[in-house]
Amino acid sequence: MNTDLQRFWSPSVRELVPYVPGEQPKINNLLKLNTNESPFPPSPRVREAIIAALGQDGADLRLYPDPDATALKAAIATQQGLPMEQVFLGNGSDEVLAHIFVAFFKQAQPLLYPDITYSFYPVYCQLFGVECVQVPLADDFSIDVSAYQQPCGGIIVANPNAPTSVLLSLEGIKQLLEMHPDRVVVIDEAYIDFGGQSAVSLIDQYPNLVVCQTTSKSRALAGLRIGMAFAQAHLIEALERVKNSFNSYPMDRMAIAGGIASFEDQAYFEQTCAQLIANREDLVQQMQALGFEILPSAANFIFARHPQHAAVQLAQGLREDGIIVRHFNKPRISDYLRITIGTSEQHARLIARLQQLV
Amino acid sequence: MNTDLQRFWSPSVRELVPYVPGEQPKINNLLKLNTNESPFPPSPRVREAIIAALGQDGADLRLYPDPDATALKAAIATQQGLPMEQVFLGNGSDEVLAHIFVAFFKQAQPLLYPDITYSFYPVYCQLFGVECVQVPLADDFSIDVSAYQQPCGGIIVANPNAPTSVLLSLEGIKQLLEMHPDRVVVIDEAYIDFGGQSAVSLIDQYPNLVVCQTTSKSRALAGLRIGMAFAQAHLIEALERVKNSFNSYPMDRMAIAGGIASFEDQAYFEQTCAQLIANREDLVQQMQALGFEILPSAANFIFARHPQHAAVQLAQGLREDGIIVRHFNKPRISDYLRITIGTSEQHARLIARLQQLV
Repeated sequence: MNTDLQRFWSPSVRELVPYVPGEQPKINNLLKLNTNESPFPPSPRVREAIIAALGQDGADLRLYPDPDATALKAAIATQQGLPMEQVFLGNGSDEVLAHIFVAFFKQAQPLLYPDITYSFYPVYCQLFGVECVQVPLADDFSIDVSAYQQPCGGIIVANPNAPTSVLLSLEGIKQLLEMHPDRVVVIDEAYIDFGGQSAVSLIDQYPNLVVCQTTSKSRALAGLRIGMAFAQAHLIEALERVKNSFNSYPMDRMAIAGGIASFEDQAYFEQTCAQLIANREDLVQQMQALGFEILPSAANFIFARHPQHAAVQLAQGLREDGIIVRHFNKPRISDYLRITIGTSEQHARLIARLQQLV
Repeated sequence: MNTDLQRFWSPSVRELVPYVPGEQPKINNLLKLNTNESPFPPSPRVREAIIAALGQDGADLRLYPDPDATALKAAIATQQGLPMEQVFLGNGSDEVLAHIFVAFFKQAQPLLYPDITYSFYPVYCQLFGVECVQVPLADDFSIDVSAYQQPCGGIIVANPNAPTSVLLSLEGIKQLLEMHPDRVVVIDEAYIDFGGQSAVSLIDQYPNLVVCQTTSKSRALAGLRIGMAFAQAHLIEALERVKNSFNSYPMDRMAIAGGIASFEDQAYFEQTCAQLIANREDLVQQMQALGFEILPSAANFIFARHPQHAAVQLAQGLREDGIIVRHFNKPRISDYLRITIGTSEQHARLIARLQQLV
């Protein structure tokens, strides 16, 4: 583009470098282990609920959804054991995070987050003009809580962290919350259902805690876009204010109906999470047998390196066989591959190919 | 809320006054003429397409949607006769408008828009820190183009305007575009399909034009949340950059599939728009016979006042009978009611009640 045409843009937009999501390639016989989607379908009730919500001939689509998605909020509140006013919903957890940045982190002091983490955080900082300081992870990729003892406008931590899969204990989270009692600490729990302990249990104790979750991973609903935040009511109110200044109706009728059905089927949720964890432990063992070093994972993916083989070449070798994993060409982690946990059949194909490569 | 708890909020959020959408009341035998939804269902193909997109047992929901919604973009581009790079999509036109404000209107000079228009515009200004000047409509509620001859950072005009229903001609739009060749002029065409001429035909001529549309009104898909912007590629690129810094996946799989089906059924679209216009002309005649004064409407609603009856009392009288219309308690328009066009049966009920009231 002729950069002269950028004169029409807001000056702040000329410097923006957007987030790049994992690719959705169109390859035959693709094995997609790059975006941490669930290998299992969602609860079968979701499909039924969506069809019912269409109404006769799809007629219910002509009406706006409930702008507050009250019925979905109620279903989630029940499942979490929280009052409804401690629940906030958005169009995927990325939108929830965006509103969190606006609601809490536009402060005079910088936001703190790990140097290796979800790479959308620095993008939000840029978009919303939030100063930030990246705090180095320890050498074992764990979060060094003591390093957060510095003046700040807030903290955000993914737990388990991405792309490392490493978990921070509730004890560590409490220390962060108590270190900065007048700043909001956000725990981004996109992957918490695969073996971690949720910080939701701390909400009543800490007026500065926000917990963020998604239905895209453990509930197999990446295609529907439902994200949640949990916090005391005075923090939820700030999020509602931002949301209602941005888009009154972020959740469509299909997402509301499908989401309710998912949260009402707790048995299916628990069963598929347990199966995912079993598959993960299986895959870790098989890859260790091939000489891979794997960080301790509490997520639906693993972060793995091989002492004798460069990650970029392994990723390329897998891709030649139609297997897509994620490689981050970034300092400290360029030796690693992030591999989404799949089914046993998918793992057999992955392992067979890795045996050829290492 | 104890205002001391606002100390956790970003300072800018403490002053935010959110947009308030038309209510979605839960009343038996409700006749809802307050949010400009379509009285007709969407194309029957929409329901089929959504069910197909669920996949076997809903399994396709486990996968993220295409972040660029390429297939929907292609369907809309075809229908509009535009190349795909002139199309931008969002989660309803409210989200598209929000991105427009960030992409183009964060300028040193103020944004201009009419004093009476969509009341979300000042909310976006507040949220994004955009200065604005409200330009008075003429006494007949038409847009006085010459009043926009002043230094500005951009212009946004709803056409037909809401809640007045009054149309600005393409000639008037050209004058705005030529008055400010280095500023972006946004024409918000939520209601253009009910008798107006779209400014999309001007896009090739004007590098500073953005046209915004929605599927919520003329395509009866308010429940799915699909908004569009059309412009030359250098303006779309700014919107994509903002969108990809905010949320990679704003359109879920159901919205993408349903939207494609709607845009592929042009015959149904044209037929229902024509029926809506016929119903509008009918309702206007019947209300004029009751003594109402009605602004010339090019929308799926009318803006009406009665010389002998206060609007607030008429709205109350209608509500007592389960009929909800919209009243704005604002300067210059507090005498008016905004009434959504319905079916003939709905109009018969409305007219019967108005006959009792006037």
